[in-house]
This record gives sequence, structure tokens and C-alpha cells, in this order.
Amino acid sequence: MARPKPLSGFPELLPAQRMVEQAVIDIVRETFELHGFASIETRAVETMDSLTRKGEITKEVYVVRRLHAEPGETGDDLGLHFDLTVPLARYVLENSGHLQFPFRRYQIQKVWRGERPQEGRYREFTQADIDIVGENTLADHHDVEAPLVMLETLERLHGQLGLPPARMHVNNRKLSEGFYRGLGIEDTAAVLQRVDKFDKIGPDAVTELLTDELGLSGQVAAKCVELATICTEDDSFVGRVRELGVHSEMLDEGLDALAQVINAARIQVPGRMVADLKIARGLDYYTGTVYETVLVGYERLGSISSGGRYDSLATDGKRSYPGVGISLGLTRLLMPLLARGELAASRSVPSCVVVAVDTEQTRTTAMRVAAALRGRGIACEVAPKADKYGKQIRYADRRGIPYVWFGGVSGEVKDIRSGDQVAADARVWTPPKADARPRVIAGGQ
Amino acid sequence: MARPKPLSGFPELLPAQRMVEQAVIDIVRETFELHGFASIETRAVETMDSLTRKGEITKEVYVVRRLHAEPGETGDDLGLHFDLTVPLARYVLENSGHLQFPFRRYQIQKVWRGERPQEGRYREFTQADIDIVGENTLADHHDVEAPLVMLETLERLHGQLGLPPARMHVNNRKLSEGFYRGLGIEDTAAVLQRVDKFDKIGPDAVTELLTDELGLSGQVAAKCVELATICTEDDSFVGRVRELGVHSEMLDEGLDALAQVINAARIQVPGRMVADLKIARGLDYYTGTVYETVLVGYERLGSISSGGRYDSLATDGKRSYPGVGISLGLTRLLMPLLARGELAASRSVPSCVVVAVDTEQTRTTAMRVAAALRGRGIACEVAPKADKYGKQIRYADRRGIPYVWFGGVSGEVKDIRSGDQVAADARVWTPPKADARPRVIAGGQ
Repeated sequence: MARPKPLSGFPELLPAQRMVEQAVIDIVRETFELHGFASIETRAVETMDSLTRKGEITKEVYVVRRLHAEPGETGDDLGLHFDLTVPLARYVLENSGHLQFPFRRYQIQKVWRGERPQEGRYREFTQADIDIVGENTLADHHDVEAPLVMLETLERLHGQLGLPPARMHVNNRKLSEGFYRGLGIEDTAAVLQRVDKFDKIGPDAVTELLTDELGLSGQVAAKCVELATICTEDDSFVGRVRELGVHSEMLDEGLDALAQVINAARIQVPGRMVADLKIARGLDYYTGTVYETVLVGYERLGSISSGGRYDSLATDGKRSYPGVGISLGLTRLLMPLLARGELAASRSVPSCVVVAVDTEQTRTTAMRVAAALRGRGIACEVAPKADKYGKQIRYADRRGIPYVWFGGVSGEVKDIRSGDQVAADARVWTPPKADARPRVIAGGQ
Repeated sequence: MARPKPLSGFPELLPAQRMVEQAVIDIVRETFELHGFASIETRAVETMDSLTRKGEITKEVYVVRRLHAEPGETGDDLGLHFDLTVPLARYVLENSGHLQFPFRRYQIQKVWRGERPQEGRYREFTQADIDIVGENTLADHHDVEAPLVMLETLERLHGQLGLPPARMHVNNRKLSEGFYRGLGIEDTAAVLQRVDKFDKIGPDAVTELLTDELGLSGQVAAKCVELATICTEDDSFVGRVRELGVHSEMLDEGLDALAQVINAARIQVPGRMVADLKIARGLDYYTGTVYETVLVGYERLGSISSGGRYDSLATDGKRSYPGVGISLGLTRLLMPLLARGELAASRSVPSCVVVAVDTEQTRTTAMRVAAALRGRGIACEVAPKADKYGKQIRYADRRGIPYVWFGGVSGEVKDIRSGDQVAADARVWTPPKADARPRVIAGGQ
């Protein structure tokens, strides 16, 4: 078998890179759980019927069938999920009788899209989603809660692992829509769609689209564009919108809701959130707050965490399930940082210690030392061969393992970085905390 | 949308069940890492070419293709992996220049097989594999190591979570093959294949197969069957084999290797391993030790953890990669225990505390309390509605959350099980350790 080539769009990690990913996922999970979100996993496949409900995404689905499926075999119309929202909607409907609402769940799983691979686009990638789903109703304060949980997660990744800091851009659909209505516009979705291109094409081109394609007057179009330029770190956006002299009840609602999110974020994660009134989010199921998030200094990666409020995640005819959620694109976030070595692990194995082996006859002695260390939570491995000690030290060195143990339970331990070797007892010796587990090293050091 | 029905063969868990699975995976991961195994994940898809190399499994593969694949599009010949060994072989070849050998890796991932669903058979299930892969050579002592790591894992699951104890049945292909050769048999694989049916059809039927189908003499067939009946908890199997009066060099090697495994297990995990000389393992790539594992009292589930030694996991022409590995069937192990409630979680959410809300105007006070608790690692959630306290307590009760907090950071905390309510400060109050995280409860209590 010749050496296989990587498959474009299906990134895989080397062991040391995977350690960084694991450290990230551990912090993500811990933060979600601290906020009371329960984990679920859903099957990788959904029926094509539920996957193709959102027309535009149809073409990106991977279809799955048994190689030797019999003709007419049922269960053949399956596809891999392309996000974790469609599966959540199905899971909630299927299990509603067994769930407590509001249902707070997180889900960290791979998803698949048959997109053309390019930088930042993958065919297989990992997402970490939180959603809060109500039965028939869901209080507005969850619109404040969901982005704060994600910002706290990103802040921990920044503080504990050295990932770049995040900046979340937040808007509220009611604010935009209420503003457009206050201007007398009926097809507000059409305006939103054009304003969504603001970052790509700039204000002048948007104004043109609004006047030429939608027939808005120059004055009305200018107001829409002026709204989109408002971006503030505090609730001063409220005053700036008011200055535009547009009024509607829905606008008031939106302003109030967005101010609440911004003010709460200023207390809990200061400096990480802005009110950015041009944020629209393409998918049309959002009905309230919408979020997008960039890594500071890595804005070119696009949004690494997005979401919002949707008033009808699912409905079974009798009951509806409104929700608010936000998704973190772990692969999109990590791959560029890992590929450039801007995040790395201090070693490629979990082991903190290699227990050297004198001769193959005394391997059981080394195994006893290892068992004593493991019994106290110290990861270690026994050297695979009773080589000369120099070779056994190199075995540790090549893997970045900091310590080599010589002799029995009462033996000696060498820090191979400094060369210091001291007498030690495997029943009590403990490595410095910084050495116990592989560490994540930021900044390519 | 009508309520969706579960998809046969694709089991999903409710949040409380998922907590049990997470607790199990955490212990599995921790134990593997204590032994120096590094985590990798491989993509869900492999080329059909590499998946269909083992002829017999072909029919169980799920093929994957883009819904709107263009005719002749490459990358279309993909299937979902049906185990974690084929991906490992490919990963090792692809990354051999970046790996350190012996390469110790663990992998906990879903796999897919298009099998007919039945009890204990799933179309999507989770496996946890460890393998040690050498470059050109791999020392025999790893044959002892791999099963001991898995037994230690199962012993921790038994001791810490209350899963049933495991019993591993071990044999060595060299022992059986050497024995058959000592009897003058040439097609030893054919004998092994028939002996593999011992548990299903019994000794008499196996004898018949050996004489009728393979033309062995009654005496030779009887020896083969006698060998298969030997099952001992210590190395006394060596004497019992010797008594059969068969000799060959390969037999000696096999006896010695198996005795080493058994003796090491008696020290490290006493009472959990037997030498069972009828164990054959159908797949023909094993070349040395082979393992099967049952849960005591749940033998009907079949083997929940199997593996062995293979001398050629992969080869690129220049180098070969021998390995030894063992796989734990997490879904097969857990689903029956979860379905009967023999394993359950003490609550359905991670939260240890619900922070009650007085009025919607003081929700920020409750948020401050929650932040103080989370800052010290206590999972909590703020009540979704400023209902009457009785309703907020019922919110906690329905989820199994043991504590409700009233008032501000200097407030009161109620243990809703006992009804005890005491003054407490959110900056210092700590729940009893047993309440901090959801616990796994065994035995359906």
C-alpha cells in the first residue's frame, strides 16, 4: 500500500495538535456545564426529508446508503447532518415527553457538508452548540444569557490557553425590522438581505441596491445605511438610532432587548461585545437577537461563533418550541492556529514520566513503579526496551516527556531538561503541577 | 411535523443517560492517558478501496456521496469507517514521518455498519480502542500490556461507577497453531475456524466437523477438542497442555507468552482474566495473543472488548507496522444497562444549584450569585421565571437539582431533599462533594 494522501476538506490532527483540541473541548464542555447545559449527542444521520427542509442547503448534504442495500429497502433515504440545529429540532420533537423545558443542551459533534473545500471551509468539522429551547414560550432574558455563556467560554480559552480574544457583534432583528417599518418599508427581509452585504460591498453599493432593486427613495435608503453603520461598545447606540428620527413599537422592543444584552456583557465580559447594527445573519429563521463573533487579529476567518433567536425551532402541530442558540465552530477556530503552530502542546503524549527498564528480567519492577505513579494520577509509560539509559532518555526526549525514572519504587528521577537527578519514592513523588499534563503553548514559542 | 420515530439501529440517549456515558468515557480516557496513550481522531470516511480490503466485511459498509455530486467527480468513492483499525492503519502510513514508534494511541469514536439491527447490534455505535504500533518490530511485552490496560479500565468502571465486573478470556494463536502442528496438522486455520464454534455447537459437534470435514483421525480431533476445553485462572494450563503430550517449538512459544499475560494479570487485576484455549477470534489477521471479554452476569451480550496481536497492521513496501490492540464496545456495553435503568444518573442536568429569582427586576442579582458560584466551579442555573418560590423549587426538583439559592450573594441555600435552609455566602459556600456533579447510580436504585 502506497502512502495515502490526505483527503481535501477532511482535516486530521497529529497527536500533539489533538491535545490542543482536547484541551479546548474540555474548557468548552466545563463552561457549558457550569451554566447548567446538559450534553446530548444525536446520530450522524437524519432522514433526507428533514435535511432538505431548508432549501438552500440541500446541495451540500452527503447522502448515505448501505453498499449492498436491497432494492426498495427502507432507511435508505439518509444523509449526514450538516449542522446540529436540525438534529436538535428532531430530537426535541421525538423526546419532548421526556425532556424538561426550558431544555438547556449542549452538543459537541462533527458535522458534514459537501462544500468545495477552501480556507476555512471543511467537509467534516466539529461544532459546539448551546441552545435553550422552551415549550410554547421562552423568556427574552435567554437572549442575553446564550451569548454571555459563549463569550465566557471564549474568554476562558483566551485566558487559560492563550487563544486570541474574541469580539462578538450583536444585533436584534426586531431593531432592524422595526426601523425599516418605521420608515414605511413593507418588504423588510429584502432590505435585510442587501444590508447583509455591507461588509463585502460597502455603504455606497448597498445604497444603490436599495434604491435600484427595491425602489426606495434616496433618503430612506440613506437612513437604512446610516443605521447599518452604527457600532458601539455600550448602549449609546440607542441614542444614535433615536437621532435618526424613526419610530415604531418593534424598534423600541429591539433597542431595549439589544441594550440589555450589551449592558449585561459589559459587566460580565467587559470589552468583548459590540452592538453592530449591520449584523443580519443570512438564514431567515432568526426572529430576535443575532450574534456573530470574530477572533481579534483573525477577522479574515469570518465568524467563528454565530447564532440567534428563532421562534419556531420545531412544532408538532400542538406545541411549538422557540429557542435561542449559538454555535462555536471549533475546527474553523483551531485549524488555522494549529497549522501555523500558533497553538501547540508541550508534548505529544500524555505521559509525564518514562520508567526506565534495567534489563528485560526486571521489567516487572518498572511496571510496579508505573502502577504506583498511576495510582496517584501521574501518567507514565514503561520504556519499550531495556536499551542503554542514554537511549531511554532520548525516547522520552523525542516525545517531550520531562522525567525519566530509574530503579525501583525507591529509585531516582531525572528531569531531562535540567539534568537534575534526585532520589525519589514512587509512592510519594509528585511532579510540579505545570508538568503533570501536557500544556497548551500559545504564540508559537 | 409529526413526532419523528427513532431510527432502528441508531440509538440515542436522553440527557441523564448521556451523563452516564460521559462519566464512562471520562474514566476510559483518563485510564488510557495514565498509561501514556495519546488521543487521535480520524475522519469518519475512508476510501472504499481501503474499506473493502477485508472481503467479508464489504457488505456492511455505508457509502457516502454528495447529493449533487457532478458526474465523474472524484472523492465520490467514500464510505463510513466500520471500525477504528482500518483508519489507524491508514493514519499510521499517512503520518509515519511525524509519529514516534512504538506509537501508543487511543481513539474513541463512532463507527457505522449497515448490519441488520438486533439486540447488541447497532448501525451506529461508539468504540474505544487502544493500539501500540511498532515500526518493523514490536516487543512481545506489549501483548501483556494492552489487555492489562483494558482490564484496569473495566475495573475502574466497576469500582467507581458500579458497572458489572469483567472477565477477559485470553489465548494465543501460536499456542493453538503450534499444538495443531505438533499433531501433524497442516491447515491449522481450518481447525481454528471449527474450534471457534465450540461455544455455539459444543465439543461433540466440533469433533465431528474436524473428522468429517477435515479428515482428522478421531484421536487427533479429540486432542484438539481437549485443548479447547482447557480454561484456567492461573498458569496451570501449561501443565494441562503438557499432559496432552504434544510438542512443537511454536507451542512452547505460545504457552510461554500466554503464561506471561496470565501471571501479570494475576498481580495487577486479580480474578479478572482466564486462559481460555478455545478463544480463536474469527478475523485472520491476529498472529499472537487474542482477547475476548464478557461482563459477569451479562455473558449473553457477547464480547464487549476484543483484540489481539497482528504482525502487519500496515505496510508501505519499505516498512511494516506490527501492532497489538484491544477495542472496547462502549455502546454494546452501555445500552442494555441504560435501557433497563441498571445504570442511571442522579440528575438530568449538570446544575447543582438553581438560583431563585425574586422579581424580573432583580434577575441581575441572581446572575451575580450564579457567577460567584461558577467562579468556584459550582454548576448552576438561574431560574427561568420569577415564579412563586414553590414553583422554582419544583423546577429544581423535576431535574434532580439538590439546592435552591434565595437572595443575593449573602443569601440562603435550601437542600430541597431535606428541606434544610441555611444562611450562606455565594463566595464561600460549597456543596458536599457527592452533590457537586451528577453521580452514576448502579443497580436501578
